[in-house]
Amino acid sequence: MNKQGAGPVGGAHRYPLRVYYEDTDAGGVVYYANYLKFAERARTELLRELGVEHGPGKSFAFAVRQCNADYLKPARLDDHLQVLTEVVEVGGASVRLSQTVMRDGEDLVRMELRIACLGAGGRAARLPNAARARLVDYG
Amino acid sequence: MNKQGAGPVGGAHRYPLRVYYEDTDAGGVVYYANYLKFAERARTELLRELGVEHGPGKSFAFAVRQCNADYLKPARLDDHLQVLTEVVEVGGASVRLSQTVMRDGEDLVRMELRIACLGAGGRAARLPNAARARLVDYG
Amino acid sequence: MNKQGAGPVGGAHRYPLRVYYEDTDAGGVVYYANYLKFAERARTELLRELGVEHGPGKSFAFAVRQCNADYLKPARLDDHLQVLTEVVEVGGASVRLSQTVMRDGEDLVRMELRIACLGAGGRAARLPNAARARLVDYG
Amino acid sequence: MNKQGAGPVGGAHRYPLRVYYEDTDAGGVVYYANYLKFAERARTELLRELGVEHGPGKSFAFAVRQCNADYLKPARLDDHLQVLTEVVEVGGASVRLSQTVMRDGEDLVRMELRIACLGAGGRAARLPNAARARLVDYG
Repeated sequence: MNKQGAGPVGGAHRYPLRVYYEDTDAGGVVYYANYLKFAERARTELLRELGVEHGPGKSFAFAVRQCNADYLKPARLDDHLQVLTEVVEVGGASVRLSQTVMRDGEDLVRMELRIACLGAGGRAARLPNAARARLVDYG
Repeated sequence: MNKQGAGPVGGAHRYPLRVYYEDTDAGGVVYYANYLKFAERARTELLRELGVEHGPGKSFAFAVRQCNADYLKPARLDDHLQVLTEVVEVGGASVRLSQTVMRDGEDLVRMELRIACLGAGGRAARLPNAARARLVDYG
Repeated sequence: MNKQGAGPVGGAHRYPLRVYYEDTDAGGVVYYANYLKFAERARTELLRELGVEHGPGKSFAFAVRQCNADYLKPARLDDHLQVLTEVVEVGGASVRLSQTVMRDGEDLVRMELRIACLGAGGRAARLPNAARARLVDYG
Repeated sequence: MNKQGAGPVGGAHRYPLRVYYEDTDAGGVVYYANYLKFAERARTELLRELGVEHGPGKSFAFAVRQCNADYLKPARLDDHLQVLTEVVEVGGASVRLSQTVMRDGEDLVRMELRIACLGAGGRAARLPNAARARLVDYG
């Protein structure tokens, strides 16, 4: 499917994906909420590549606290898209990211996100040092 | 939204819903997987009305083991649909249901499902007596 | 399902909904993109109540241009939620809305959106006068 | 992401995918309707590889008429899955497929589908000869 593997490109992480029927709506374009799914897939792959373990059963999880999305142009069925992810700022307990969904070098949707670190019980927690260091190195 | 409340009708439980953009695809109709979401909403409301407590944090959960769906006619954006649910057979550890998605008295999608009871650790378990009795009474 | 009908409440439109399995994720909470689905359902019902006809096959459609979401607290399976929608500003070709997903009077997710009017061929278009008047009256 | 490309394997088409948060539910496993999304992605890639053009704006489209799914074992967050697709029978106006979602060589969900060919206006239509020949060759 994705002939080019995911990975960093010019300071940003690149995640390729294809648009399927499930992503579109009766307007003939990708449904606006589904770009957030694309962005989350890309974040997950970035964290996997950095070796940052998170989520159910791990010592911490990430939760989106803020997501600002600008929809510039619509994606359509069968489009081959790229999600570019940049680490903008690594704080003590949260991370700021910039993510852009692109098609053929053109920006379709730009997102700015703040992701918080949650510890046991879902409470806000400090980002573990190892995870923090990897994200800082990447930014 | 749903002017008529959910509830049983002529031996079957009726669940009303509206089709939104999120449910449709670029073909202009409801995406085929989404009828399974409609059916699950209807089952959840039936169980809620019967007072059968299940799911995360409860003593047991239900899991779909088999789902056979016949797609007869497509639903479209803004359609007002009904999901009719009938309890076909209540076994020791599973339940057979028949669910039909309808529009204006016409069948759109017919589903036959077998739902299994899972206990702690996600293992197959006997249906608790109280839940069993309520489902048998309903069927 | 929704015992209380949808409708305006103290200047805002109120849309009630229930959280089902389909809305949640393995973190045990509603998946972050799905609040945008809830918001779109609420906008659709507001426009339906105002008699504003839009979408495929109509003379114009709405498209989300900007969506800024603040996630304050998570919703969970079986939660009964309300989406409050306020018309903030009606421009010549776009509308600003404020939408809040609430549970028991508590804000869970706050969204600010800008929705643009699209005419034939998906191009930006002026909002028809009748639709504009109804939105201005509502705001 | 997918280190191994998609493609045929021992008579069946293989489509690899990763399970993301969006695919899971509060039960900690993949939501039952989402396996149908996985299967549709795999069918789309098989048709793309066969050069069968279909869908909005093309001369014909496919619609699922029947989908029988057996859920054997659940998939979980971060699982790396394979969808195996076999063409079982190519009729004049429909195709029978067998699709299996697997993890590490183990069957998780088995699906039998009948897909019908739709022409202009969404009416049942004969499968074009070129498409038919490619599917027969593949089967």
